[in-house]
Order: sequence, then C-alpha cells, then structure tokens
Amino acid sequence: MVFDFETPIDRRGTGSSKWDKMEALFGVSAEDGLAMWTADSDYATAPCVIEKLRAAAEHGVFGYMPEYDGYLNSVAWWMTNRHGWQVEPDWVLTTQGLGNAVALCIDVWSAPNEGVVTFNPVYHEFANKIRKTGRRVVECPLARDGDTYVLDLEDAQERLSGDERVLLWCSPQNPSGRVWSAEELRAVAEFAERNDLILVSDEIHHDLVFPGAAFVPMHVAAPEAEHRMVILTAASKTFNIAGLRTGNMIIPDATLRAAMRARLKTLDYQPGTLGMMMIEAAYSPEGAAWVDAQIAHLARNRDAFDAAVNAIPGVRSMPLQGTYLAWVDFSGTGMSQEEITRRVHEDARIAPSPGPGFGTGGEGFLRFNLATTHARVVEAGRRLHKAFSDLQ
Amino acid sequence: MVFDFETPIDRRGTGSSKWDKMEALFGVSAEDGLAMWTADSDYATAPCVIEKLRAAAEHGVFGYMPEYDGYLNSVAWWMTNRHGWQVEPDWVLTTQGLGNAVALCIDVWSAPNEGVVTFNPVYHEFANKIRKTGRRVVECPLARDGDTYVLDLEDAQERLSGDERVLLWCSPQNPSGRVWSAEELRAVAEFAERNDLILVSDEIHHDLVFPGAAFVPMHVAAPEAEHRMVILTAASKTFNIAGLRTGNMIIPDATLRAAMRARLKTLDYQPGTLGMMMIEAAYSPEGAAWVDAQIAHLARNRDAFDAAVNAIPGVRSMPLQGTYLAWVDFSGTGMSQEEITRRVHEDARIAPSPGPGFGTGGEGFLRFNLATTHARVVEAGRRLHKAFSDLQ
Repeated sequence: MVFDFETPIDRRGTGSSKWDKMEALFGVSAEDGLAMWTADSDYATAPCVIEKLRAAAEHGVFGYMPEYDGYLNSVAWWMTNRHGWQVEPDWVLTTQGLGNAVALCIDVWSAPNEGVVTFNPVYHEFANKIRKTGRRVVECPLARDGDTYVLDLEDAQERLSGDERVLLWCSPQNPSGRVWSAEELRAVAEFAERNDLILVSDEIHHDLVFPGAAFVPMHVAAPEAEHRMVILTAASKTFNIAGLRTGNMIIPDATLRAAMRARLKTLDYQPGTLGMMMIEAAYSPEGAAWVDAQIAHLARNRDAFDAAVNAIPGVRSMPLQGTYLAWVDFSGTGMSQEEITRRVHEDARIAPSPGPGFGTGGEGFLRFNLATTHARVVEAGRRLHKAFSDLQ
Repeated sequence: MVFDFETPIDRRGTGSSKWDKMEALFGVSAEDGLAMWTADSDYATAPCVIEKLRAAAEHGVFGYMPEYDGYLNSVAWWMTNRHGWQVEPDWVLTTQGLGNAVALCIDVWSAPNEGVVTFNPVYHEFANKIRKTGRRVVECPLARDGDTYVLDLEDAQERLSGDERVLLWCSPQNPSGRVWSAEELRAVAEFAERNDLILVSDEIHHDLVFPGAAFVPMHVAAPEAEHRMVILTAASKTFNIAGLRTGNMIIPDATLRAAMRARLKTLDYQPGTLGMMMIEAAYSPEGAAWVDAQIAHLARNRDAFDAAVNAIPGVRSMPLQGTYLAWVDFSGTGMSQEEITRRVHEDARIAPSPGPGFGTGGEGFLRFNLATTHARVVEAGRRLHKAFSDLQ
C-alpha cells in the first residue's frame, strides 16, 4: 500500500496551534511562513485510524465508555511487537497526554520545594511542569562528544543536593534526536537507584527511530529498576493525534501503579472514547505499515534538510537518530541568538522552536519540525541557505 | 426536519458501560435485559454533530489545538440563546466532564477534613468525590411536599458545624428531575452567603426540561452571589457525548476563575480537539432544533413510563420536570430494598440505578433512565407491571 505524505493539507484556520498561533508568537505570517515549531505533523494520520473514526461517526452514540480490554490489549500488543517489550495490559494507565502525565508524576512522587532532575537541553515542558507544581528544577547538562550528546553522570551527581525525588528522563531524546544505548540507559537507572529517584522515562518518540539506530525501552534495559520506574508513551507523535489528548503511563510496579491510579480516580480522569478507539486502530499491523512508510518519508526529509543547513558555514544539524525534530546549532556563525532568530523569522520566514527554552545548552540552537511534506522541507532549507548567504 | 429516536441501535459489545457492564454489576444479562442505569442515551447524537465528526475524519490531521474562540463563543451563544444567560466566552474553562470538575472544585476550594454540603438524595458522584478527596460529606435532606422535593434550609443550617467550605448544588435536580424556581435558587445562594460556601451549581441537565417547567440558571437567579459561584455545564447529557469527556466550568468571578485556571494549567489539562469541535457543532440552531425534538420524545417516554408504574399499587414515579431520569418510590409496596431490587433485576430483567446510592432519602427508590426508544420504555413499563402483578 502506498501512503501519502506529500499532498499539502492547509491547516491554517483549523484551530491548529502550530499554524494559527505562529504570527502572534513569532511574527511569522502564516500567509507565506513555514510553521516548524509545535511537535505535530502536517500530514494526515494513518488510513486505518481515519476509517475507525468514520465508523464511530456512523454509530453516532458517544455515551460513557471505560478503558476497555481491546484498547489496553492493543497498547500491550504494540509494545511487544514493535519494541520487544512485554507489557501487561493492566500496567497501562491512561492520561491526558505527556504533559499531564509528567505533572501527575511530580505531584504524586514529590512535595513542593523538593528537586526534580533533568538532563539538559531537554523538552521545555519538563521545567515548566516542575516550576508550576512548586518544585525545584535540578538541571544536569548533557556533555558533547563531537556531534552528539553523551551522559556525564559524575558531573550530575555533584549537582544533586539530596532532596531530589524524581528524574525526568527523555528517550529518544528531545530536542536532539539522540537514541540511547542499553548501556547508557542502565547507567541512568543506576543513577536513579543511587539517589533514590522515581525514574520517569518519556518515551513518546519511541516509534520514530531511523534505520541504523535501535530504540531500547528503559524497562527492557534495566528491568531491575522497575520498582522506581514509570514509562510515558503515546500514539500522539507517531500517528499525529496529539489533539485527542490521550497518552499512556505504563507502570510495571504494583505499588507505584496503585498510587497513580488512586490519584487519577480522585480527579475522576477517564480517557475519551474516540481517543481510545483511534489508538486501538493505530496499534495494529495496518498502523505499523503506515509508521514504516512515515519513517522512510522522515528520513528523506532529514537528509535533505541536513544537507541544506550543514552547507551554511558555522551551522550544524545534530545527526538525527530518532524523532522528527532537527536540533540545529547556529553558534558557529558567531551571531547572537537575537540575530539568528531575526534572520530565521524575518528573512527565511520560518518559525522553529527557540533553543534556550530547552534549558542549559540550548543557547545558539533552534529546533525545526520536519514532519511535513518533503517539498516544504526543501523550501525551508532553501530559505535558510539564502538568509545566511553572506556567510558563504 | 424529522429526527430519529426510534430506530434501535445495538450498543452491546461497543464498550458502552451501560450495556457491557450490566451483567457483571447487576446480574442482568444484556441478551434480553434493559439497561436503564448510566445516564447516557441509546439514540444517536444530532446529525449536525455527526456531520462535524465526518468532516474531521476527512481532514485527517489531529495535532495540537487550544481552546479556540469558535468553541468558546458557541458555549456563550448557547447559554444566551437557550437560557437567557449572558455568558462571556472568557468565563468558560473546559474540564474532563462533570465528575472531574466537581473533584477539582473540592480540591481548589477546601482542605482535607473540611466539610462539603449536599442536599440529598443527590447525584451519587458528589459523595464519592468528597470522600475520595478526603473531605467530609455534610448531608442535608431535602423535604417532601407531596410528590415533590422542597428545601428545608432551617434544618440544613442546624446540620452545619462551621468548617464547611463548598456547597454542591444540583439544578435541575438529579435524581428527582425537580426544576427549581428562581426564589428557591436565591434562597440557596443566600444560604451559601450566610455560611461562606463556594456555591458549585451542577446544571448539566439544564437543556432537558419539559414544557410547563422553566429552568433558571443560578447566575441569573442570584447574580449578587457570583463572587462565590461556579457553574458546571456540559453538552454531554443533552447531545449524548459523555464519552468525549469534555465539560465546562463557567466562572463569572475573575478571582475564582484565576484560581481554577492555575490548577488546570498545573495539571496541564487541555480539552480534546474532537470534543470541542463536536460541542461547537452542537451549540447551534441545528443542534437546538434536535434538542427540541428530543424533549418531545422524552416527554412521551415519561408519560408512558409514569402511567405504567403509577398503576402499580404502592409505586409512585416523581413527576419529572426535567432530566430523563425517572425517580421511582417503591416504599409504598412495603417491600424491602432487596425484594424490590430482586423483582426488578430477576423478574423484570431491568437494571436501574439503586436509590440508596444517592444518599439519605434514596431508600426504597430506583432511578430509571428513559433516554432510549419509546418501544423500550413501553416494554420496561410492561415488565415492571408484571413483576409486581401480585399487588394488583
């Protein structure tokens, strides 16, 4: 089956954050601007998911529906079949998405003023949630090994003061697209063990990994740490259904799971019918075939984008092992963040995510979302090239 | 336009709580049993809502989407046009539904061990949420004036100990279908004022009111109390979309609103795209025409059901002014709750909601959901008549 990632879909005026808030936030008009910030895709989800939604519309009844077996089984099926990870359906709790899950983990497993550890630069919502819940962000910088990020756990150890309770880990890594090895993951689990931290592993990009890299689930790498482990996944990035606000928390340990389930029950959180139905349709052989085709499309986008930006002197895109988020280092241009941003917004008319939002180490960077048509990615490369043409 | 509430839709095996959990909970097989408990409808939602969902399926992109103006404006439009209540779009906060909203109100405006006031019998989830959040249920019984419930605020006053913080009010009243007068609502607002209670008014059944009764929003009846007022509404009962898990909290007061908005932001609660789109489609002239037709259908169901059960000696259905929930008093039969329940489950093969779950005053009652085809309601009346034929 041939899947279509190329027919442009006009998302302007549809309520999309990425397109309809771009001008207000970045001054880049949607008229001829390219929205490359918010991490969702510009192409339609898998045909099997759309088909399920059509069938739901025909049924027409949208009454109360609990988390049903078919849905939970499909989550377990996907983890086993796509990731070699044996998940029991009853380990799966459903949340309002990753941000909501992160906030709930902080709420359940730490108290105000206690520390929550992150390895930076990292997904900006981690620090956001830590601050909003009144906890302290304990930033541990990732080290650089040439073009890629690596761990420096000795340095991290020195940054802890002993009142840290939770570690927010990101794998594959956002914003750098780094796919961690089993050995690195085990080192992180040991770090959590040594410091008695609840290890929250954001694995939301786990499906979007390019040939040559191999994603390893934290629970597969370090099963011995499962008594402190919460794994966050979702079909939202993989299938472009973030708007459904449905994500999963997978908690193998019964005690941790009971604590989180009680919190969800107290708040009366229950997943929406259509989110569950669409995820059940996505987590299937038909959905898997679509994801394989999407990865090939994204790899082509990555290659074209990297070739264009890496040709600009002083600009370097980190080699992307996973995710559709290109993490581009402009610091070699010697320009200030303001000048880089001005050229990208005003001259190239592109709205990427600003690097400093990802915390320490994000200075001089911009993050570009490549989950769009190939033509648009090529156009973005062309515009960036032109905006920095005086360097060439 | 003619709307269809009569073509039977088979909800068995669709994940529906009402149908698929009936046998496990009540021992009533779905094979020939009638599910009349959970408060959702067996008929399809309005055609304009289904049409919107079809269009969303065609678009195929379900990325991030904030609470958008069109959606908030549609909520304000509905309140103004259907209820004569001037609501500003920015008063509207979106929650995961009524139960979630009630839990959040208790969480934000009271502390553990403090009291939360209810007038009983009342929607069972009120007590459930109060207990789960570690607060005390302060039950104030409704008084009876013949066939209807009335307030006894002098009695209620004596039941308060002074540490109460929140009043959970229900209007139209669930389970009795009572539609309160403006005078009664003002008395409740004064009671809240006198006791310094946050007045949370559950108005989720506001659209489902029969000819002869007139619903008055709490904020219209007692605008002077808006500094302590939170109104909970939803399109879920009206349009049978509870499974979308999208409800509204309408908070006219800026200080109260800021407190709740902060709580929602901390938890990273954001409404789902499809829920918002379907509500926007529902809150329209086309949706209003469908609701009018539904009310006529429900009035016919109510009349047939009441005629059947009121013909049983000792059984009396409360005159339903609003909601599709018939509140039936079996106490005049002189039978125990167990015997009443046994006859209804085993002989009539019907699963209604048990009365005692609604708190003090619910003993001897069962609540029957009439939001189904007319044929099914007639069949329910026939079965009940037969199950108690020895009394006739």
